[in-house]
Amino acid sequence: MTDKLYKAPDSVGIVKTQYYTFAEPPDEILLDCGKKLGPITVAYETYGTLSPKKDNAILLLHALSGDAHAAGYHSANDKHPGWWDTMVGPEKAFDTSKYFVICSNFLGGCKGTTGPNCIDTSTGKEYGVTFPMVTIADMVKVQKKLLDYLGIDSLLSIAGGSMGGMQALQWVIDYPDMVRSAMVIASTSRLSPQAIAFDEVARNAIVNDPNWKNGEYYGNSVPHHGLAIARMIGHITYLSDESMHQKFGRRLQSKDTYCYDFNSEFAVESYLHYQGDKFVDRFDANSYLYLTKAMDYFDLSSKFGSLNKAFEHIKSKMLVISFSSDWLFPPYQSKEIVKALMNNDKDVSYMEIFSSYGHDAFLLETDHLTQLVKSFLNHLIEV
Amino acid sequence: MTDKLYKAPDSVGIVKTQYYTFAEPPDEILLDCGKKLGPITVAYETYGTLSPKKDNAILLLHALSGDAHAAGYHSANDKHPGWWDTMVGPEKAFDTSKYFVICSNFLGGCKGTTGPNCIDTSTGKEYGVTFPMVTIADMVKVQKKLLDYLGIDSLLSIAGGSMGGMQALQWVIDYPDMVRSAMVIASTSRLSPQAIAFDEVARNAIVNDPNWKNGEYYGNSVPHHGLAIARMIGHITYLSDESMHQKFGRRLQSKDTYCYDFNSEFAVESYLHYQGDKFVDRFDANSYLYLTKAMDYFDLSSKFGSLNKAFEHIKSKMLVISFSSDWLFPPYQSKEIVKALMNNDKDVSYMEIFSSYGHDAFLLETDHLTQLVKSFLNHLIEV
Repeated sequence: MTDKLYKAPDSVGIVKTQYYTFAEPPDEILLDCGKKLGPITVAYETYGTLSPKKDNAILLLHALSGDAHAAGYHSANDKHPGWWDTMVGPEKAFDTSKYFVICSNFLGGCKGTTGPNCIDTSTGKEYGVTFPMVTIADMVKVQKKLLDYLGIDSLLSIAGGSMGGMQALQWVIDYPDMVRSAMVIASTSRLSPQAIAFDEVARNAIVNDPNWKNGEYYGNSVPHHGLAIARMIGHITYLSDESMHQKFGRRLQSKDTYCYDFNSEFAVESYLHYQGDKFVDRFDANSYLYLTKAMDYFDLSSKFGSLNKAFEHIKSKMLVISFSSDWLFPPYQSKEIVKALMNNDKDVSYMEIFSSYGHDAFLLETDHLTQLVKSFLNHLIEV
Repeated sequence: MTDKLYKAPDSVGIVKTQYYTFAEPPDEILLDCGKKLGPITVAYETYGTLSPKKDNAILLLHALSGDAHAAGYHSANDKHPGWWDTMVGPEKAFDTSKYFVICSNFLGGCKGTTGPNCIDTSTGKEYGVTFPMVTIADMVKVQKKLLDYLGIDSLLSIAGGSMGGMQALQWVIDYPDMVRSAMVIASTSRLSPQAIAFDEVARNAIVNDPNWKNGEYYGNSVPHHGLAIARMIGHITYLSDESMHQKFGRRLQSKDTYCYDFNSEFAVESYLHYQGDKFVDRFDANSYLYLTKAMDYFDLSSKFGSLNKAFEHIKSKMLVISFSSDWLFPPYQSKEIVKALMNNDKDVSYMEIFSSYGHDAFLLETDHLTQLVKSFLNHLIEV
């Protein structure tokens, strides 16, 4: 049956990641950190058809561990669809029979876009930690270059959850005339000290893995243990206390009684080990360092003096969504965004979805999100 | 001035840790895991004077990283008093002019009581991971042996926070006729899956440190990085989101602007690194493995069929205290204990203290706790 998944009427089907390279020296882009970077390759996918008026484009912005592959399958045998396949396709929330949907891997990532695991053309070696520090604004700048290349000078909407929501906020600030609307889901204008703390412990686990070798591990053993620990910490913060009770409780994985040894016994332990190991196979440890740092640095209040000032010049219609049990990007942070937008008399809607899924809800509460996204987009078209 | 601290009128002054050794082979004690252990040395301290009737003894039960040194100073130059010095001394909550207060390091610890860093007399080498798994009930069994040795067959009260509260619950269940009252502070009858998850990530960091060497690191470099990561994770869970905002916010430690490198920049990062490094100097990594496992295993509902059944035969008057912002041992877990006690018609008082300090509140909310403890103990004496 698996090979038929891509044929489902609401699937975008088989898709292909495409690549665009720009900023060839001496035309490198200037980054927030003051360094220049180029050439830059961007991995991206598109779904649906750009209208003759080019007024139906929607840019999706992925989260920390996501990629350009938001929907569909890469082959007829591909068992796993894109990361937001539940939301992107014909008749789905991002209805590809109406909209032209674009998703690209962000700068510093490890899924086809230039990042620390790519070859530095000036040395012929992988960048590793010589890769310059990149910010959310740098990522957005690169996305803008991709849109220029695609000939799109106006976006009907942009949407992102978590770190993708940070990019959405950056977009409406940096390119106010280009973005008609934005959906900021389970996100924040700045991480809490608690979230920074978790990021720092995760980075610490990676750089103290002897295989990390100051980031020069390409071609050798990767810092498996460190990256797995980072991911395990991540997963705890993506779930909620309640969802962990529901999903695992104190259930033992395979026995009825305690083993009295140090093997994993509780189901929650097995889950974390599985997630940690799986992540190592698909993600680059150096990227994890850069991307968490980019999130930690993101702080609109600090950058503009206040959140009110940050939003002063935006023109986009905004939809802000949070989830009740999300303690990594808690609802109070979404409310700060909404308040600052309202203080500026901006057009903003806010919804806190009641959910036990924690931060993961932005990928799991498909029904709620579909309803909200569809309604939000329909109103845009009607206007 | 420092050398005068021990002379304060409300200090127990200079105290000395004492040691009691028992369970010499062939009289080893039988542990829950089915293995035997002996000889066992217990490190303990006492403050105040045992009354002629021997009816004023109070046993304090320390938390994960605590020790027998609950109050006073070890020398005239000692700058740091015992871990609960704010609560133990003349006129303090545990008033040593009235009560005879005992505190011992628990089994499996690394502060003088037999644990994995001690010499296994049968091999002449440190136990390391050949140390048998110990449970909260095993710890309590050893505490009981110490009281037998001290000639105390009745306790006016017992009190413990966090993991110490687990021991208090075990005490009133295992020795119902010996304990007149118990104070269970910021504790639980079983850890949540979220807390188990954090423990497992911490253990994972330790055992994947190359210096851990399957626990045989004594005399060599200790698993510094792994244990520091474990402690950093611990500290995040001991604070609350709110207290981290208050204590650190997004403040940078030493500069006004970002450095765009991977050094610690945020104050919260510096705090965690400091706490992690400091812990390594005073705690044994193998003990951390055993003690977190003992906490994970503790589950009164599972052991007795239900929490109601667990409390069926207790005779102690109970005081249960939780803290509003404690998300590691959240108030709902204290309420489960109180509910089960009430279902059994036991004499129980409950107080949720409003505090932003998170789990750490049990060591910081001295004024609130002093009031509650004093009143609880006074009523016992009046009866």
